Amino acid sequence: MHPVQIYDTTLRDGAQSGGISFSCEDKIKIAQYLDKMGFHYIEGGWPGSNPKDLDFFHRIRGYTMKHAKIAAFGSTRRPSVAVEDDPSVKSILDAQVPVAAIVGKSWDFHVRRALGTTLEENLSMIRETVAYLKSCGMEVVYDAEHFFDGYKANAAYALDTVKAAEEGGASTVVLCDTNGGSLPAEIAELVQVVRSRLSVPIGIHAHNDGEMAVANSLMAVQAGAVQVQGTVNGYGERCGNANLCSIIPNLTLKCGVETIPRKKLARLTEMSHFVSEVANVSPDPHRPYVGVSAFAHKGGVHVSALLKDYKTYEHIEPELVGNQRRVLVSELSGMSNLLYKYKELNLQVDQQDPEGRRILEEIKQMENQGFQFEGAEGSFVILLRKAFNGYHEPFSLEALRLITEIKENNPAYSEAIIKMKMGDRVVHTAAEGNGPVNALDNALRKALEEVYPEIRSMHLSDYKVRVLDEKDGTGATVRVHIETSNGKRSWGTVGVSQNIIEASWQALVDSVAYGLLEDDNHDTPA
Amino acid sequence: MHPVQIYDTTLRDGAQSGGISFSCEDKIKIAQYLDKMGFHYIEGGWPGSNPKDLDFFHRIRGYTMKHAKIAAFGSTRRPSVAVEDDPSVKSILDAQVPVAAIVGKSWDFHVRRALGTTLEENLSMIRETVAYLKSCGMEVVYDAEHFFDGYKANAAYALDTVKAAEEGGASTVVLCDTNGGSLPAEIAELVQVVRSRLSVPIGIHAHNDGEMAVANSLMAVQAGAVQVQGTVNGYGERCGNANLCSIIPNLTLKCGVETIPRKKLARLTEMSHFVSEVANVSPDPHRPYVGVSAFAHKGGVHVSALLKDYKTYEHIEPELVGNQRRVLVSELSGMSNLLYKYKELNLQVDQQDPEGRRILEEIKQMENQGFQFEGAEGSFVILLRKAFNGYHEPFSLEALRLITEIKENNPAYSEAIIKMKMGDRVVHTAAEGNGPVNALDNALRKALEEVYPEIRSMHLSDYKVRVLDEKDGTGATVRVHIETSNGKRSWGTVGVSQNIIEASWQALVDSVAYGLLEDDNHDTPA
Repeated sequence: MHPVQIYDTTLRDGAQSGGISFSCEDKIKIAQYLDKMGFHYIEGGWPGSNPKDLDFFHRIRGYTMKHAKIAAFGSTRRPSVAVEDDPSVKSILDAQVPVAAIVGKSWDFHVRRALGTTLEENLSMIRETVAYLKSCGMEVVYDAEHFFDGYKANAAYALDTVKAAEEGGASTVVLCDTNGGSLPAEIAELVQVVRSRLSVPIGIHAHNDGEMAVANSLMAVQAGAVQVQGTVNGYGERCGNANLCSIIPNLTLKCGVETIPRKKLARLTEMSHFVSEVANVSPDPHRPYVGVSAFAHKGGVHVSALLKDYKTYEHIEPELVGNQRRVLVSELSGMSNLLYKYKELNLQVDQQDPEGRRILEEIKQMENQGFQFEGAEGSFVILLRKAFNGYHEPFSLEALRLITEIKENNPAYSEAIIKMKMGDRVVHTAAEGNGPVNALDNALRKALEEVYPEIRSMHLSDYKVRVLDEKDGTGATVRVHIETSNGKRSWGTVGVSQNIIEASWQALVDSVAYGLLEDDNHDTPA
Repeated sequence: MHPVQIYDTTLRDGAQSGGISFSCEDKIKIAQYLDKMGFHYIEGGWPGSNPKDLDFFHRIRGYTMKHAKIAAFGSTRRPSVAVEDDPSVKSILDAQVPVAAIVGKSWDFHVRRALGTTLEENLSMIRETVAYLKSCGMEVVYDAEHFFDGYKANAAYALDTVKAAEEGGASTVVLCDTNGGSLPAEIAELVQVVRSRLSVPIGIHAHNDGEMAVANSLMAVQAGAVQVQGTVNGYGERCGNANLCSIIPNLTLKCGVETIPRKKLARLTEMSHFVSEVANVSPDPHRPYVGVSAFAHKGGVHVSALLKDYKTYEHIEPELVGNQRRVLVSELSGMSNLLYKYKELNLQVDQQDPEGRRILEEIKQMENQGFQFEGAEGSFVILLRKAFNGYHEPFSLEALRLITEIKENNPAYSEAIIKMKMGDRVVHTAAEGNGPVNALDNALRKALEEVYPEIRSMHLSDYKVRVLDEKDGTGATVRVHIETSNGKRSWGTVGVSQNIIEASWQALVDSVAYGLLEDDNHDTPA
């Protein structure tokens, strides 16, 4: 079948999702990632509606995109305004990116009711806005809002609107199921109808209100659409947009359609988790293809069949999308992972060593408590060193006390008092900070830096808190993840406790301990 | 179109979902609920594989089902065993329910590889097991495992297996997409093929590994299937089963198909939340039709159109499925969202009132700082009340001090000392907790409960922390979100600060203040 362009709108339509609020920095990180994945278009935002989006467009120009074209979103000009005077259209030009995504009305009811203008004027608005932006040197993708609902209400008029976009010179006309309630067979039928009337390439933009956005996108492609718009993890308003993490492998692996480069597909799971991390939304374990449970098998019939042949209960090999099979109760696979780690760390551990089993048990128990060692290499290495290497702790805690005070109408004040032991030496000191964890961090550094001056080159580059059992309210367990950098490399550490101070302390201690350890072994490759 | 029977397998296939473990009591509660909803079949478990399931079947006989037939699940007899001697078949009879659901192999590869028997013997196993249970007075639903994959591998044999079930006397032959990877068009095509060869009614059982289980079920119905198997909320192993909470309204409202009684549809949202409560799984806010965000609107353009007519951005009226519209206030939104809120709160605010603009500015500025009012109705209402209503603060802070101590090898200890003013009264008290925020929460409650005993009914049901500018490490700004419930309803509040204690304090104060406010207005519908 024909190749399909992947058009991502995570940064615009995805950001409409309740609970998601990207900073400009977040958006830049995501755009870079999607570019590396080989996405064809990245819609960065709506510069006319939001100053933060304009800031993104200005900053993203400092980065070279290898694959993706950056698109700025906006609507057709307002009724009875010259297109070159329309502020929203102007802001698209101000974005200074190669592609404009212009949304216009397809549904006569919307033109009269929401825009309050005539059907004829709406056609001019579409034609002129597309033509004007094209004349300014932009590629224009036209989004036909509510196309399917509009067609059902007034087919002839809906077709007129997309014809107006074609006449204006749109590179692609994207049929949008804006309210997300259309059915797969309808989508396929109407894509075919439009293809029979227009010669411009057709795209699809589906929402998930009927839980069919992925299928609707696929049906559109099978009916001839050559561009699919969607978001990573299906983020988006209400029930979300079409989920590119499912659409891409469905098209590539099931339909043999060329989308992103095949070798990039093996990073799909990582991409999904990266974006959910940036969005600070817990990844859905049951998410198709990329969820941690997507290839998880409970015991019994399935597992014994799987041991004979994976095809018995898996629709694809998980490795194709960078995911992995999980067989619950898998002591053996756990052990082999651990052996792999030992090797990586040059630890001489006999496979039969009972200590190895004990460590595995300890790790499992810690993971049950909420520890997560992925992305927390530092804590994991400290744990193994402690078990095997006659590891000598560079410092230990005698006591710490943290005080936070708030007085009526004054900002909060936090202070940490700390007593540390390094060999025979005891240091007792104090520091303040923006908040309690910052005060703790400052006090720890102050206590250690005389003995370990190298700590001055280490700084925290990331601090994350995840509440694990949210239903327990303020009594819930939290996981703290810290990323530390010494300018040459960075490492992650983790702490878990019902007490956020204690969890932060664990991650901080590991972070410094690992940094000092690495400093001892300059030769060890990172 | 033809009516469709709803066959629920939440209690059997749904219970395979990682993280879900129903007690016998749970299963009875769910079965009673689904019966009241007018479901046609409820599959209660696999008595042959699980003694807990047999217990369920014994106990459920004590309850009269008004609509639903209870089904017991099991597989065809083993190879080379007389059907009446097969223990698994016996356990189905032991369940003493009207319906047997028998799964058998359709895929030649599975017959040889997983069962280790001949293709011919498998046909006998199917035919004889169905016929035997029927001769014992049971209605037999036949589940053709891996039908679609099997057909693609060996079409003639896959058809032979379902013919064997028909010959045995099955009431329905259900085509199962066991690995969940089939495409909608394939499903439609193969349902039609089977219908042209068999006269027995056809059902569909889809899994969600391609994120298309709902669409696949719908396509099967449009191709002639008269029974849909699925689970409430799509619970199930890996990526879940077909979600009945989406399939039922899609069929009823979009395709005009008779499923459960129309008036029961208005309890769909409640049913979804009931089952997630029993399963102890947080409900997905973005779940189609029934999620709390399924009809939540954030974009300003959308909201201003919605104010004119709901059809502009909703695929159905939320009330049809017992859900409701929500308007979120955010930086993406404008004056129209605010006006909608005023209306909702019965605040008489003139659209031209400069105070209205000032509030909008204040909200935007707070959002720039990191506040997020969507999902924080409580804080938002308090903010508006303060601006417009001569709001009287029920309490105020004089001072608070929080102390956390960690001593070598001891667990952390947190304590809060608090001095509050309520009118002329000053309360000075202290409390401890799991962590600093929990101690603060406890101290605040202790201080207020004498004057406001209603605070005892309020409890925190959710506590979230989001580090906003993570690169600033432990000095970063954090946003705290709290969800509070008083047993009748729940509300969210928010706080933002570089100091997590201060941010938590803001959210806690709003949470209690809003709860007390709502308590003043018993007449106001929630």
